[in-house]
Amino acid sequence: MKIGKNCKIQRGVSIADNVIIGDNAIIRSGTIIYENVVIGDNFRTGHNVLIRENTKIGNNVLVGTNSVIEGNVEIGNNVSIQSCVFIPINTKIEDFVFIGPCAVLTNDKYPIRVKEKLEGALIRRGASIGANATILPGVEIGEGAMVAAGAIVTKSVPAWSLAIGAPAKIKKLPENLRVLNKLGD
Amino acid sequence: MKIGKNCKIQRGVSIADNVIIGDNAIIRSGTIIYENVVIGDNFRTGHNVLIRENTKIGNNVLVGTNSVIEGNVEIGNNVSIQSCVFIPINTKIEDFVFIGPCAVLTNDKYPIRVKEKLEGALIRRGASIGANATILPGVEIGEGAMVAAGAIVTKSVPAWSLAIGAPAKIKKLPENLRVLNKLGD
Amino acid sequence: MKIGKNCKIQRGVSIADNVIIGDNAIIRSGTIIYENVVIGDNFRTGHNVLIRENTKIGNNVLVGTNSVIEGNVEIGNNVSIQSCVFIPINTKIEDFVFIGPCAVLTNDKYPIRVKEKLEGALIRRGASIGANATILPGVEIGEGAMVAAGAIVTKSVPAWSLAIGAPAKIKKLPENLRVLNKLGD
Repeated sequence: MKIGKNCKIQRGVSIADNVIIGDNAIIRSGTIIYENVVIGDNFRTGHNVLIRENTKIGNNVLVGTNSVIEGNVEIGNNVSIQSCVFIPINTKIEDFVFIGPCAVLTNDKYPIRVKEKLEGALIRRGASIGANATILPGVEIGEGAMVAAGAIVTKSVPAWSLAIGAPAKIKKLPENLRVLNKLGD
Repeated sequence: MKIGKNCKIQRGVSIADNVIIGDNAIIRSGTIIYENVVIGDNFRTGHNVLIRENTKIGNNVLVGTNSVIEGNVEIGNNVSIQSCVFIPINTKIEDFVFIGPCAVLTNDKYPIRVKEKLEGALIRRGASIGANATILPGVEIGEGAMVAAGAIVTKSVPAWSLAIGAPAKIKKLPENLRVLNKLGD
Repeated sequence: MKIGKNCKIQRGVSIADNVIIGDNAIIRSGTIIYENVVIGDNFRTGHNVLIRENTKIGNNVLVGTNSVIEGNVEIGNNVSIQSCVFIPINTKIEDFVFIGPCAVLTNDKYPIRVKEKLEGALIRRGASIGANATILPGVEIGEGAMVAAGAIVTKSVPAWSLAIGAPAKIKKLPENLRVLNKLGD
């Protein structure tokens, strides 16, 4: 275990032996980090976060309370994952992404029916996922795209567009939303 | 910390120094209560509940297992919040409200895009929110209104009406549901 | 408490006195099991699982991290319940069922309005429930039926059919999905 300078690790946190964490981390109580996880600087978690094995996380990343990252996940820099989010194996999240509370990503199209490789979502740079949205396996959320709260996203979403509804339809993203200005917040 | 008579506080509970809690509380294991939280009598929690700072909670309130209350929240009397509910900053919940399991309230319309004041929902007296429903920022759920399970509520809901669907449509609330008879249960 | 051979029980697990668990269990940290729960062989949990009183669980069952089983629930053999699932009182789950992450089952049709017996769902043998789906009270999911991710299931689903959408419509299940081949996985 290699933990950087100025890290605050609260009670009941469990970190596997070979985990690497950068400087200035705040890891709140009950958080569990499995083997072979590598995390950059300024990492912050809520309480009872679970991060499973072989996950890579960049700098300036937040993971909120009760969120579960199942392992084999790549997360870029300046990513904000809110509370109660579920991120399965083989998901990739690029820089400046925001994932709202209770959003659910998936990786298994036909569980218990057809054996396929588990294929997670790919969330491109600067995309935002609304609260309680569901992202189907293998879907790509394009750069700067916005997924509305509660949307069920069954198909890939083009860059700088809006996915809204259940199932989600692709709409034009209003001009005033084609910006990113609270990055890493 | 000022805790009333006949309170039962289980193992692994963490309560900040200046929290005030009334009589007869049952606070189950793993629950965390931050600074400046004031709670009335007969408070009950499930396990691993998180209540963040500056939250006010009335008498006879239940908060179920894994529910997260993010802080700066006002909750009235005789409110039942079931398990796995997410309640963000600046939410207001009046008396006799019921919030079903895994319901998600929100406060940020355009995360990482447009900086606005975080505006939570306002849930009026005697309203009920169905399981896994999503309530958009700034929405008002009227007195006695019913939000169906899984509804995505994008606009305010008039008193004693029904919001159902994704996105939710407003319908007439059947006569036999214009009553409240399991209050505080 | 009667616990079988070769069981691994991690730190912070709480198991009530009269619980019975078979051989080869792996019970991860923070899991809580209430009174009168009986569990078969090869039981595995994630972290912070809650299983309340009078629940019966068969052999080869998995319950994922943060999942809540509220009590008085029957679960068969070879059942896979993923992370963050909510299962209320009076639910019955038969053999070979798969419940995806963050799925929400319910048992109370008109909370705080009409007092009825709490009636959970009945999930028949070999059915699968998609991620973040919501199942309304008293609904029966037929043998081998598939509920799509994010579906809001308001009516019973016939055997070997597909429920998809919000609210869910019943469709024909494609021929290649009328099989079960990752049972108990």
